[in-house]
Amino acid sequence: MKIRVGIAGYGNLGRGVELALSTSSDMELVGVFTRRAPESVNTVTGAKVFSLDDAPSMKDDIDVMILCGGSAKDLPKQTAELAKYFNVIDSFDTHANIPEHFDAVDAVCKENGTLGIISVGWDPGLFSLMRLYGQAVLPDGADYTFWGKGVSQGHSDAIRRIEGVADAKQYTIPVEKALEEVRKGTQPTLSTGEKHTRECFVVAKEGADKAAIEQAIKTMPNYFADYDTTVHFISQEELNRDHAGMAHGGMVFRTGKTGLHNEHNEVMEFKLTLDSNPEFTSRVLVAFARAAHRLAKEGAVGCKTVLDIAPAYLHPADGTELRKHLV
Amino acid sequence: MKIRVGIAGYGNLGRGVELALSTSSDMELVGVFTRRAPESVNTVTGAKVFSLDDAPSMKDDIDVMILCGGSAKDLPKQTAELAKYFNVIDSFDTHANIPEHFDAVDAVCKENGTLGIISVGWDPGLFSLMRLYGQAVLPDGADYTFWGKGVSQGHSDAIRRIEGVADAKQYTIPVEKALEEVRKGTQPTLSTGEKHTRECFVVAKEGADKAAIEQAIKTMPNYFADYDTTVHFISQEELNRDHAGMAHGGMVFRTGKTGLHNEHNEVMEFKLTLDSNPEFTSRVLVAFARAAHRLAKEGAVGCKTVLDIAPAYLHPADGTELRKHLV
Repeated sequence: MKIRVGIAGYGNLGRGVELALSTSSDMELVGVFTRRAPESVNTVTGAKVFSLDDAPSMKDDIDVMILCGGSAKDLPKQTAELAKYFNVIDSFDTHANIPEHFDAVDAVCKENGTLGIISVGWDPGLFSLMRLYGQAVLPDGADYTFWGKGVSQGHSDAIRRIEGVADAKQYTIPVEKALEEVRKGTQPTLSTGEKHTRECFVVAKEGADKAAIEQAIKTMPNYFADYDTTVHFISQEELNRDHAGMAHGGMVFRTGKTGLHNEHNEVMEFKLTLDSNPEFTSRVLVAFARAAHRLAKEGAVGCKTVLDIAPAYLHPADGTELRKHLV
Repeated sequence: MKIRVGIAGYGNLGRGVELALSTSSDMELVGVFTRRAPESVNTVTGAKVFSLDDAPSMKDDIDVMILCGGSAKDLPKQTAELAKYFNVIDSFDTHANIPEHFDAVDAVCKENGTLGIISVGWDPGLFSLMRLYGQAVLPDGADYTFWGKGVSQGHSDAIRRIEGVADAKQYTIPVEKALEEVRKGTQPTLSTGEKHTRECFVVAKEGADKAAIEQAIKTMPNYFADYDTTVHFISQEELNRDHAGMAHGGMVFRTGKTGLHNEHNEVMEFKLTLDSNPEFTSRVLVAFARAAHRLAKEGAVGCKTVLDIAPAYLHPADGTELRKHLV
């Protein structure tokens, strides 16, 4: 019997999960749940659309609900709410609030006998796993996470809030020289500003003061002031044509020394190069949905993160097959 | 209370584990167990040395025994034998025989209420984990494992068996062009010979026919015939001076397509660059020894591989700390 999956929230991520499920032969999509009028939503593969309000009544038809809302407003409430009825997976990515979100979801899961896996994706998610494996294997070492090249939604939003700005996209770009140093194993101390540059493509409103906009961007505390920042003014047409892509990626390094006199450098690097950030994130969500279903069937209850999931639960093959072909 | 660890077998790997334990504040080394006369073995950090025959009598003093023997002759018997008395970890790396080895260790563990984790290291080991994560996330994709640059013990041995050869070292080297293609996400079909070249440093015996040796190497089936192979004749002094290092490494890739029309490439890459193959392998063994102890305390019994271990078990910090700093 296939694993029956629901999708809560239908934006880029929801569409990605819909596509991902169509390539997973052991899973099937029951439907998409939305706060909009269901008849107004057209799904990519023709999946059924339900009102989110009707979700609780379908608790026996769905093994795992994958939440595809945003971390700022949707998930902090929705994941715990839906965990009353379903095993849940989300991609909550506000790193600082993960402990609080975990506790909220954990309490509801334990009260209702459900299982939740939060903060699933690539960062947090696969990158968290790599940081853990790195630290566990090389305890006396240094971690480095680089992001990009890719669009930072938060930084793009920050630019859009500046007076005179009509639209904007901001790319985070790793600094090649910093990457080189890290790969050598020298364990340099690097600020985020030394690891990344920021490139901004800005559409100014008619008659806006471009010099003032550029100044406002480059001096914005936290977001840009500590970075080498480049600003390009372009037209809305150019922005739509050249900067609509959702490519992203990044790298996690762990470097450590071994040997009686610390004479050996050991370097671990994990790198993602993604044409579509939401489609890749969706694939990770779907793999962990498989794990959630299997663990729940074994009786597991409560909230977990990717760090708590034995890898074999993610793969459709059984232990015998995995040992034969993959170990 | 610290996790009490024993080391069975004291070569490069055993010494690496001894050093690794000295950097793990939650673990302590009880002693090294050897088939040699204990008084003839000098340990790097002054660890105690016992006869392997005395190991069973110390079953209550050791939480986990890390086996550091070879996969050809030692581990196929030793791991199961020691699993009668101890939770065991080994680095069994004969890929084709892993299922058989697993079954043998599993049976003994279950009979004696112990836990075993086999085939721990980087390949098998971390590379197995990466192959699994890759396949689980990108089910419609292609896997690539590259090894090197590093010495292949098996290929070096094969050269040494040729008439007229006094000594030899063989390096396996990834082909840059193949790496480039894989990184582009084109999913090329590549034989091992297209992925790697082989470079041989050979010491010929006095008066040996060098041309015949070179011919014998380059035409050797399985080992060299299908590869672009280079042979250099050097003196024993040069071999000892320039080729005594144990650097190694490699890469695991998973590339897959996403999008409604498979229009997006997603590339996952995991890369190791190691100055010391045995010292890094030792670090992985020690991290999984921590996991074995924790799992055994929870009541787990039987044989496992790295794929069966939830990552959080490897890290000394607890769940709250991990969620705060690492997810």
